[in-house]
Amino acid sequence: MLRRAYIFQTIKDTFESYGFQPIETPALERLTTLMGKYGEEGDQLLFKVLNNGDFLSKVDDDTLLSRDLDDILSKISKRGLRYDLTVPLARYVAQNQNELAFPFKRYQIQPVWRADRPQKGRYQEFYQCDADVVGSGSLLYEVDFIHIYSRVFRRLGLPIQIKINHRGLLTALIQSYGLGAEFEIATTAIDKWDKVGREGVKKELLQLDVEQVKVDSLLDLLENGDLQQIKENISGDKGEKAWEEIQFIFEQIEGSTAEQDLVFAPELARGLNYYTGCIFEVIAINGDLGSIGGGGRYADLTSIFGMKDMPGVGISFGAERIYDLLESQSLFPDAVGRHLDILFCCFDEESLKIARDYAEELRGLNMRIDVYPEAAKLGKQLKYADQVGSPYVAIIGEVERQQNALNLKHMASGQQVLLPFSKLKSSLQEGDDLKDQFSEK
Amino acid sequence: MLRRAYIFQTIKDTFESYGFQPIETPALERLTTLMGKYGEEGDQLLFKVLNNGDFLSKVDDDTLLSRDLDDILSKISKRGLRYDLTVPLARYVAQNQNELAFPFKRYQIQPVWRADRPQKGRYQEFYQCDADVVGSGSLLYEVDFIHIYSRVFRRLGLPIQIKINHRGLLTALIQSYGLGAEFEIATTAIDKWDKVGREGVKKELLQLDVEQVKVDSLLDLLENGDLQQIKENISGDKGEKAWEEIQFIFEQIEGSTAEQDLVFAPELARGLNYYTGCIFEVIAINGDLGSIGGGGRYADLTSIFGMKDMPGVGISFGAERIYDLLESQSLFPDAVGRHLDILFCCFDEESLKIARDYAEELRGLNMRIDVYPEAAKLGKQLKYADQVGSPYVAIIGEVERQQNALNLKHMASGQQVLLPFSKLKSSLQEGDDLKDQFSEK
Repeated sequence: MLRRAYIFQTIKDTFESYGFQPIETPALERLTTLMGKYGEEGDQLLFKVLNNGDFLSKVDDDTLLSRDLDDILSKISKRGLRYDLTVPLARYVAQNQNELAFPFKRYQIQPVWRADRPQKGRYQEFYQCDADVVGSGSLLYEVDFIHIYSRVFRRLGLPIQIKINHRGLLTALIQSYGLGAEFEIATTAIDKWDKVGREGVKKELLQLDVEQVKVDSLLDLLENGDLQQIKENISGDKGEKAWEEIQFIFEQIEGSTAEQDLVFAPELARGLNYYTGCIFEVIAINGDLGSIGGGGRYADLTSIFGMKDMPGVGISFGAERIYDLLESQSLFPDAVGRHLDILFCCFDEESLKIARDYAEELRGLNMRIDVYPEAAKLGKQLKYADQVGSPYVAIIGEVERQQNALNLKHMASGQQVLLPFSKLKSSLQEGDDLKDQFSEK
Repeated sequence: MLRRAYIFQTIKDTFESYGFQPIETPALERLTTLMGKYGEEGDQLLFKVLNNGDFLSKVDDDTLLSRDLDDILSKISKRGLRYDLTVPLARYVAQNQNELAFPFKRYQIQPVWRADRPQKGRYQEFYQCDADVVGSGSLLYEVDFIHIYSRVFRRLGLPIQIKINHRGLLTALIQSYGLGAEFEIATTAIDKWDKVGREGVKKELLQLDVEQVKVDSLLDLLENGDLQQIKENISGDKGEKAWEEIQFIFEQIEGSTAEQDLVFAPELARGLNYYTGCIFEVIAINGDLGSIGGGGRYADLTSIFGMKDMPGVGISFGAERIYDLLESQSLFPDAVGRHLDILFCCFDEESLKIARDYAEELRGLNMRIDVYPEAAKLGKQLKYADQVGSPYVAIIGEVERQQNALNLKHMASGQQVLLPFSKLKSSLQEGDDLKDQFSEK
């Protein structure tokens, strides 16, 4: 929980440094808002909430006996649980269009629910973490999102690659190579590249009405092509415009720290629908190659809710995967995950009273302090310190008490130091760390 | 949203300074966990989630036609939305009893859902904010919770009163005054004190089999009694033990800053069930008298989930009410609620490029910076700054550019200052505030 909070805080701080404001939307959305937005599978995986009170009151006996699930559902359930953060954003923007200032920049970190069969690494409730700029066609926001990805993962200490492509380039290439008539099938095939590899894609493309030599040279280009080679192989205004957009973004990133993270990936497709411009995908350089982030530009967020001409660009972070990577590569800072700095352990009631006073003073210095609530055997208290993960204990008995001192013990090493409380306090006030108490000796 | 985050952060930091660790539980709980825990009204107000797939598959035609809602519900819905944070805590503790270290100190800040008719100040989805110590009978945790309340509201700048009573004292008094036989009705009547006042309570008590003079003197004691007077009017071991507990807590608080906030409130009842020891309620000194926090000690958290002898003590904060009070009394710090520090506004493309470089550098100093994405008319850009609530804008045109400078404008006052960028940056690096840029001149 504290480790997840650390990931979210890093992302939040970065979003905010780029002027994004947080919003939250309700967990329950109308089913009319949700249904039909995620394909047939999505409709199945939506959690539907039963109307309250007499939920059968609008269903007559004939309908009940018909067992027409869609019909009955529409009469017994009006709302469902949030399935992603994009549809609620679209609903929110359409509903509040007169109050919002555009470009509208928001981020949102909230759970979503899907009735997937639960399995390792896949939960029915999980957090999504999105940022979007709605109501602007400026490519500078694409540039900002690249900086954001780069900054977040640098802060987390996780080396990444940000793949970038443009839907318009992919479209132009597919057309140049004679696959325009079967555009959707071709794109779907290419979209599977990271799962099935070049050979898998090739197999699917060869089933289409196209010469093998063309497929091979298309795949060569998608696999190894640089921007210049791509330019030479596209034609048409749309393709050229797409090329210029990618070119512009690379120019803007040039010379920044994000430059090292950004790679042109002409094979990147990111699904069939929705995206219309630049698309991104982030993968970790070490560890498995699964995506830990992605996004892109869309031409139309809200027309489905009656608001036209609302383009935008957005990205998301895959928090659960990032968590797994940080954990498996031991990249969480030591302090993250600890909820306590010191546990006070006392030998007698008198010491306990003093410990509680000390604790109150240290809490005023933003330290996280607990006091074992009774003068139990020291072994029992130390065991508790160990169980709750306190890195230090402060032991007070008669000896320490008479010197207005405490015995600070580092749990991991067993090192101990007798410290006057006033000295500990002033040292912490000056910003020292608890471990500095040992090196001074 | 940012203002709410400020309240939660203040509470979180304080909980953590007392050694509480955060937990989150899933929004969806089994209906068998939830039903029957919140009374009949609660069962009605629970949101039930329809089973996925063919939700009618376990309901035969006869059952459908019977329209027996409870029976049908049990066959079409297995889970419901979290209704509070206490039942999930109990379920969590019982389920993880072998892994947890006791005393188990957790806090939890998550939304809960209730199918109340929505109305002003009452939402179907709202946050609860609880902390509990489970598995210890130590009164020192009651003392800690008083300190926590006191610290949180001091940090928020909201003057409060923490009312304290003990269920055992109330019980002993009701018995002393001859109302023991109708104990529940008497407690329920007293519990309404803050809603119906002394006269309302009196009216209800007089309907019981008791002399008016006794009711009057009981009410006198509840209204004005101090600890000493209460002591003289109770008898029995349980009453005396309760009295000693309250006495102990006051002794522990004596001399601390929390002492000024704590008041003994013998009329405080806090509902009928659940609590068995000390009880708390927090009210704001200014503003309406509604509760903004409450809690108490319970003897048994988990036996309903098969785990016996698990006492505890907990408190909660009423975040929505606290929000309303801070807002109506203008107690939110100015900076809270702003998501931006500076918006850069440029006159031409060249300046825009420089502004974006400056922005990147300032973001590295934890500033929240946005850049208007085109060299639009200044009026349009300033309007946007105003709409998104940016307190400052930094204007760059040819003049500023030639001096490697920017024009920093304070939106509220209209004051402007021409600053070399390097000077602004080094000043911010030293921890100066943006407003200091104006006073220096």
